[in-house]
Amino acid sequence: MPRATLSGFPELTPSERVVEQHVLDHVRRTFELHGFAGIETRAVEPLESLLRKGETSKEVYVLSRLHDAPDATRDRQLALHFDLTVPFARYVLDHTGALAFPFKRYQIQKSWRGERPQEGRFREFTQADIDVVGQDSLPFQFEVDVALVMCEVLAGLPVGGFTMRVNNRKLCDGAYQAAGIVDREGTLRVIDKLAKIGPAGVTAELTALGLTEEQVDFALALASIRTRDTSFVEQVRALAGSNETLEEGLAELAALIEGGDSRHMMADLSIARGLDYYTGTVYEVTLDEREGLGAISAGGRYDSLVTDGKRTFPGVGLSLGITRLVGALLAGNEATRAVPTAVLVAVTSAESHAQSRRVAASLRARGIPTEVMASAEKFGKQIRYADRRGIPFVWFPETSEVKDIRSGEQVLADPEAWTPPVGDLWPRVVQS
Amino acid sequence: MPRATLSGFPELTPSERVVEQHVLDHVRRTFELHGFAGIETRAVEPLESLLRKGETSKEVYVLSRLHDAPDATRDRQLALHFDLTVPFARYVLDHTGALAFPFKRYQIQKSWRGERPQEGRFREFTQADIDVVGQDSLPFQFEVDVALVMCEVLAGLPVGGFTMRVNNRKLCDGAYQAAGIVDREGTLRVIDKLAKIGPAGVTAELTALGLTEEQVDFALALASIRTRDTSFVEQVRALAGSNETLEEGLAELAALIEGGDSRHMMADLSIARGLDYYTGTVYEVTLDEREGLGAISAGGRYDSLVTDGKRTFPGVGLSLGITRLVGALLAGNEATRAVPTAVLVAVTSAESHAQSRRVAASLRARGIPTEVMASAEKFGKQIRYADRRGIPFVWFPETSEVKDIRSGEQVLADPEAWTPPVGDLWPRVVQS
Repeated sequence: MPRATLSGFPELTPSERVVEQHVLDHVRRTFELHGFAGIETRAVEPLESLLRKGETSKEVYVLSRLHDAPDATRDRQLALHFDLTVPFARYVLDHTGALAFPFKRYQIQKSWRGERPQEGRFREFTQADIDVVGQDSLPFQFEVDVALVMCEVLAGLPVGGFTMRVNNRKLCDGAYQAAGIVDREGTLRVIDKLAKIGPAGVTAELTALGLTEEQVDFALALASIRTRDTSFVEQVRALAGSNETLEEGLAELAALIEGGDSRHMMADLSIARGLDYYTGTVYEVTLDEREGLGAISAGGRYDSLVTDGKRTFPGVGLSLGITRLVGALLAGNEATRAVPTAVLVAVTSAESHAQSRRVAASLRARGIPTEVMASAEKFGKQIRYADRRGIPFVWFPETSEVKDIRSGEQVLADPEAWTPPVGDLWPRVVQS
Repeated sequence: MPRATLSGFPELTPSERVVEQHVLDHVRRTFELHGFAGIETRAVEPLESLLRKGETSKEVYVLSRLHDAPDATRDRQLALHFDLTVPFARYVLDHTGALAFPFKRYQIQKSWRGERPQEGRFREFTQADIDVVGQDSLPFQFEVDVALVMCEVLAGLPVGGFTMRVNNRKLCDGAYQAAGIVDREGTLRVIDKLAKIGPAGVTAELTALGLTEEQVDFALALASIRTRDTSFVEQVRALAGSNETLEEGLAELAALIEGGDSRHMMADLSIARGLDYYTGTVYEVTLDEREGLGAISAGGRYDSLVTDGKRTFPGVGLSLGITRLVGALLAGNEATRAVPTAVLVAVTSAESHAQSRRVAASLRARGIPTEVMASAEKFGKQIRYADRRGIPFVWFPETSEVKDIRSGEQVLADPEAWTPPVGDLWPRVVQS
């Protein structure tokens, strides 16, 4: 597992970083193959806008300059972003003129939260987000699209099984309306804690919120519905009857289940997501063998998060917790080596160094990562140099031979033509 | 140029980001082809260690948690790193057991400085560093290697001509000794400002430092030597005579010029680099057509930066200013398009959406970035969707035809076999 000499700020060894880089490359490639454009936002936002939106219960890191007089007014203070959604919403407003809507973007960056570190929770962590935002409107199809893309990302990584649970805010809102529940947002926030505090805890909190016993039972019964097909529709109607908002939510959730990835997705009406800004579909993904880790991906549809008062940019997005995911991967996987190098070119004398450099340049020109020994050493020492790094091949320029130091096999080779087996060209991630 | 709605924190549009991503990919690939392993360090360091080492004159951003009581003792405070060298030195000590020495690493990350923003200076910026550190010792050859790698990086980017100026601290130290200069570090720090304050300014400051008129003339004469070959050796000896430290510096600088990239490198004895920790070679790279931008890359050899008191890890490294470099690139270059997408698959009816998705999946499976229209629209609107994004091809699944919307050419195509011209597959960077 990654080591943290500063609590909550894990760092990877070079070998672990190969695993993380593999994840990042795979994630980026999948996003780009689906047409998402990569952007980055600055690490800081005005503190006020961070506090206005999103998860204000999260601990925020506030910045001050060392040589500055303490700044009394909070509105000029800067703070580190705690997610990529709020900065992206601001980016869309700041750069509207440079964007074509619907705008599909991905963003892979670090975020920071001053929370107490615990398993799967860090103070510094990397997230990979995809969002699609429209101007004034956004077709429902994108709510299916982002789910399919995220399932494709996870299916391409050695994480074992995973489940994407989906629900719809309109469905819950309509059902709660039907049951006469007044504080529907509050009810949803309590239901969101079901997995954590259990039915008894939820009952207590909902009762405190003013729900009747029947309403509490209703909310718990609704939250207990989970189906891999669209049979939830009839179960909900049997429980709640029908109204316009409810039917809209049911239709959307059914369309998502039908259009989505049936191997990994299920309707789960206990999924609420704590955030106020979601207005339609909500998503939550867990690893089947690491449910205790919590969600490794989550998101939803938001209609009014991005607005400057005049224009509104409804959106839908999913966030993937890279740091959490890499932690899970490192439990059963490792890199074949910690360095990019496939070939070490030996150096037999100070005079032959130039010859070794020419061999290395030929190999690199053909895309083969290659190092040259920095100084002439005995062959045994040069082979140990390669061995300690996991470099599979050592090249001897004077005889123009290349040795696979794992098998000991040594063959004549032309630096203009020889290539390593494709599996040895770059480090790979394998089961450990 | 990148836009900053918050002073000093520039953000790129999606199209500008394509240019930055091209630079980042090229830099990473070049580093990896030379066997440098990628790592990242946390964004924060204890404030004390940042103040102890490096450029303490730089404004540092200190962190505090919103809900924390103000922390009276500075030693527990965290601050954002202002470069990647100091964090890397700490990383080597924290993770020694996981590293094979000499350890070659690259690191591409953001850094932060609370300085007043001006041209080429930002509060948030990305750097790409390479360093090699040995345990106890480090062969000189690596001082040549890192220079060659950085020249290869820059030669592969459309930045026009560039010059890597190199000098050697031992050379200066030995020469100053020969001239009887006592405050040799102070003299070097003043010489470092030569380009900024001119000979008159340097004369005033060196005189204030206690140098005699002859010593000032000597230091200025030494700093005026610049040669593309090793003829500086005789010029220095004619000026300063000889001593052990001087000869060591001359030999190293001569070896660097002889082993280095003669198209781009020159010995320039005015290069000092302000940092105290350099002990041998120092490097500074400027773009020939953008000298006013300042150094876009710089670094040097350091013998005692990385030490835990018992063990010492001498190193050499170069830092490349990505943000500054991308700013220079954007002045004359642009992306062929702002999205990864090469093909838009049209949708003619809600019923045919599945067919369009199958075509897209075939294309993506063969590595072609592809989007599907989110809803059925008139052909004209779908072509405008592609056109506004610079997507070169629109696919019509019902007739199995693909149209190059730039030329208007439309041909029959098999989704299992068709590929776009290689130049259209991904966005590219071209002269604007």
